[in-house]
Amino acid sequence: MTSSFYPPVRTLMGPGPSDVSPRVLSALARPTIGHLDPLFVDLMDQIKGLLQYAFQTANELTLPVSAPGSAGMEACFVNLVSPGDTVIVCQNGVFGGRMKENVERCGATAIMVEDAWGEPVSIDKVAAAFDQHPEASLLAFVHAETSTGVRSDAAALCALAADRGALSIVDCVTSLGGIEVLVDAWGADAVYSGTQKCLSCIPGISPVTFSPRAVERIRNRKHKVQSWFLDMQLIMGYWGGSTKRAYHHTAPVNDLYALHESLLMLQEEGLESAHRRHRHNHEALVAGLEAMGLAMVVAPEYRLPQLNLVRIPEGVDDALVRNALLREYDLEIGAGLGALAGKTWRIGLMGFASNERNVLYCLGALEAILAREGAPINAGRAIPAARAVFNR
Amino acid sequence: MTSSFYPPVRTLMGPGPSDVSPRVLSALARPTIGHLDPLFVDLMDQIKGLLQYAFQTANELTLPVSAPGSAGMEACFVNLVSPGDTVIVCQNGVFGGRMKENVERCGATAIMVEDAWGEPVSIDKVAAAFDQHPEASLLAFVHAETSTGVRSDAAALCALAADRGALSIVDCVTSLGGIEVLVDAWGADAVYSGTQKCLSCIPGISPVTFSPRAVERIRNRKHKVQSWFLDMQLIMGYWGGSTKRAYHHTAPVNDLYALHESLLMLQEEGLESAHRRHRHNHEALVAGLEAMGLAMVVAPEYRLPQLNLVRIPEGVDDALVRNALLREYDLEIGAGLGALAGKTWRIGLMGFASNERNVLYCLGALEAILAREGAPINAGRAIPAARAVFNR
Repeated sequence: MTSSFYPPVRTLMGPGPSDVSPRVLSALARPTIGHLDPLFVDLMDQIKGLLQYAFQTANELTLPVSAPGSAGMEACFVNLVSPGDTVIVCQNGVFGGRMKENVERCGATAIMVEDAWGEPVSIDKVAAAFDQHPEASLLAFVHAETSTGVRSDAAALCALAADRGALSIVDCVTSLGGIEVLVDAWGADAVYSGTQKCLSCIPGISPVTFSPRAVERIRNRKHKVQSWFLDMQLIMGYWGGSTKRAYHHTAPVNDLYALHESLLMLQEEGLESAHRRHRHNHEALVAGLEAMGLAMVVAPEYRLPQLNLVRIPEGVDDALVRNALLREYDLEIGAGLGALAGKTWRIGLMGFASNERNVLYCLGALEAILAREGAPINAGRAIPAARAVFNR
Repeated sequence: MTSSFYPPVRTLMGPGPSDVSPRVLSALARPTIGHLDPLFVDLMDQIKGLLQYAFQTANELTLPVSAPGSAGMEACFVNLVSPGDTVIVCQNGVFGGRMKENVERCGATAIMVEDAWGEPVSIDKVAAAFDQHPEASLLAFVHAETSTGVRSDAAALCALAADRGALSIVDCVTSLGGIEVLVDAWGADAVYSGTQKCLSCIPGISPVTFSPRAVERIRNRKHKVQSWFLDMQLIMGYWGGSTKRAYHHTAPVNDLYALHESLLMLQEEGLESAHRRHRHNHEALVAGLEAMGLAMVVAPEYRLPQLNLVRIPEGVDDALVRNALLREYDLEIGAGLGALAGKTWRIGLMGFASNERNVLYCLGALEAILAREGAPINAGRAIPAARAVFNR
């Protein structure tokens, strides 16, 4: 018999969704108003301003797409790619592969630049791809790879694209709010993110921003955008400018209450403080994991503080440990993906979930389960090591 | 200075979003869990079963698209239309025009069958279009036109499509939960709806269902679906069947809590009771409006009980009245669209908002404002006339 669903209170330390602040959940449940209500239109303006702050951009075309991050990705591609175009796509994890799918479904050619999973995108390889394909009109890459926990050099990659006369599409799903995202300083042309990572909002919305150059390319398209729902020329009429709002689709009103509250929390904390907090909790987690005897996979200079790729000790059953964490501790961590599946865990410290309690709780739970399973760990050292970082 | 947003408590009697039940808002704000959590996967199965009940279908491919109704529409078109196809599209309001856009953006040809706004789709005209275009592989039409409040004969139209060897796409955004939607009995092949109308859930999700014939056409496609995000062959891997769930995109976890609760409420009430309630409140509203001296636009046999198109009395300023209702009564009703703009209002009685109190409140508020504006109305008769229907 079907009845009301009461979820348990999990601690969400996977690749997202991350823990949502009670302030955000409370905003989410406020009474629904109309999507053309003058008060809602004011709220939309505020959200736009808060997103401009989060993205560090003055881009006029900055708004939340009414669907998850993968729709935000698709919004960037379908608006900027036309049939016959050549697009250089960097792949160093799962999401580069999804970008390739997007390019090809737009009738364009994807030139793949591949790097190992766990490594950042190689600037030299991208430069060589532009040498071989001077016709390329776009460069697409992932700033923070959710599948591996690696940061690539967005500033250098955007500069390279601009230097070759190409626009850039940057996936900032996992970076926004957790590490520096400097859309204007980078000169990025189209950037998308998600709400369920370091913004610690509910999943389902994708903030995007387009540079004036990107808007110009959209306005000069010869082919209609293949998606009506994601056509920015239509969406601009609802979200854009100071003129009368034209109905396009019904905005997800309550989700936008939640996004507004989460962006407000980010502004109150300040971007620099939020980044510092992510770094600090990351350092404590790593100190604890290493004290326990576990090894990090990604080199320190490319590591994302919000997503920590840890090597599973030899002989330990991946799924057994994750299931025990979930069942016995209501604690979710992420599995590895692709070639890293079964060999690594992904421990998220994203947004509201990036806090001292979660670091210590996770270390304690993981140590207890690994010890029970007979893994070769140094018992009793993890929490003191993390505490030492917090007390620094 | 930006601060937390506290919306007023509106009464939502426009074309949607409609009033959301406190039960649904409360479910919405429950703690977020992971989108691959075993408990969430159970919830997905329950939602699928509840949607099958709401749609009256045994279709295996029945699920909520993670985006608003216009994305649900697009999901039906991009999966069933291939470049070069011929699609017969019926237009008797705004949404037929949007269907045409979808068809053309798929590289197909739309054969338009036009009827006046305020009239249902003509079966004879559709039959003639099939005579002229025997190659047509799809028929698309709107069951309940949100822009006019008109119901078309879905059973006859789906049967006609099947008879001509075509599949049918049916827009049930405004009908689902308010009037009979009989997907299997009609033999409809792809049906989409929205959460923010008669399901009285928050806006942002689009329930869809595909018949086995539609699934077969999707599986036999020669061209990849142009949208990665809406590709049902990929989405089936996450929502479909009994096998292991494959990650496609991050589901909007909290929105699905809300949808689950609203579908549960529909099941508890029962479809027949819900339809009877919509009809009863509609009759009371119409009795009140007519007693006041206002005229309904749509002929009784095609009227939607959940969306009432009323003629604005001569000399009355449309926007002034709607703004006064919103400012003084926190009451939202809808404007007319297209040729009906400025000449009609759309009064919604959808889902949770279809109740006695809303009928009486709206009649009282409308009468007070029209009297103040000097409109030629019969004062004091509306509420007693509505009450007489309720007391029947």
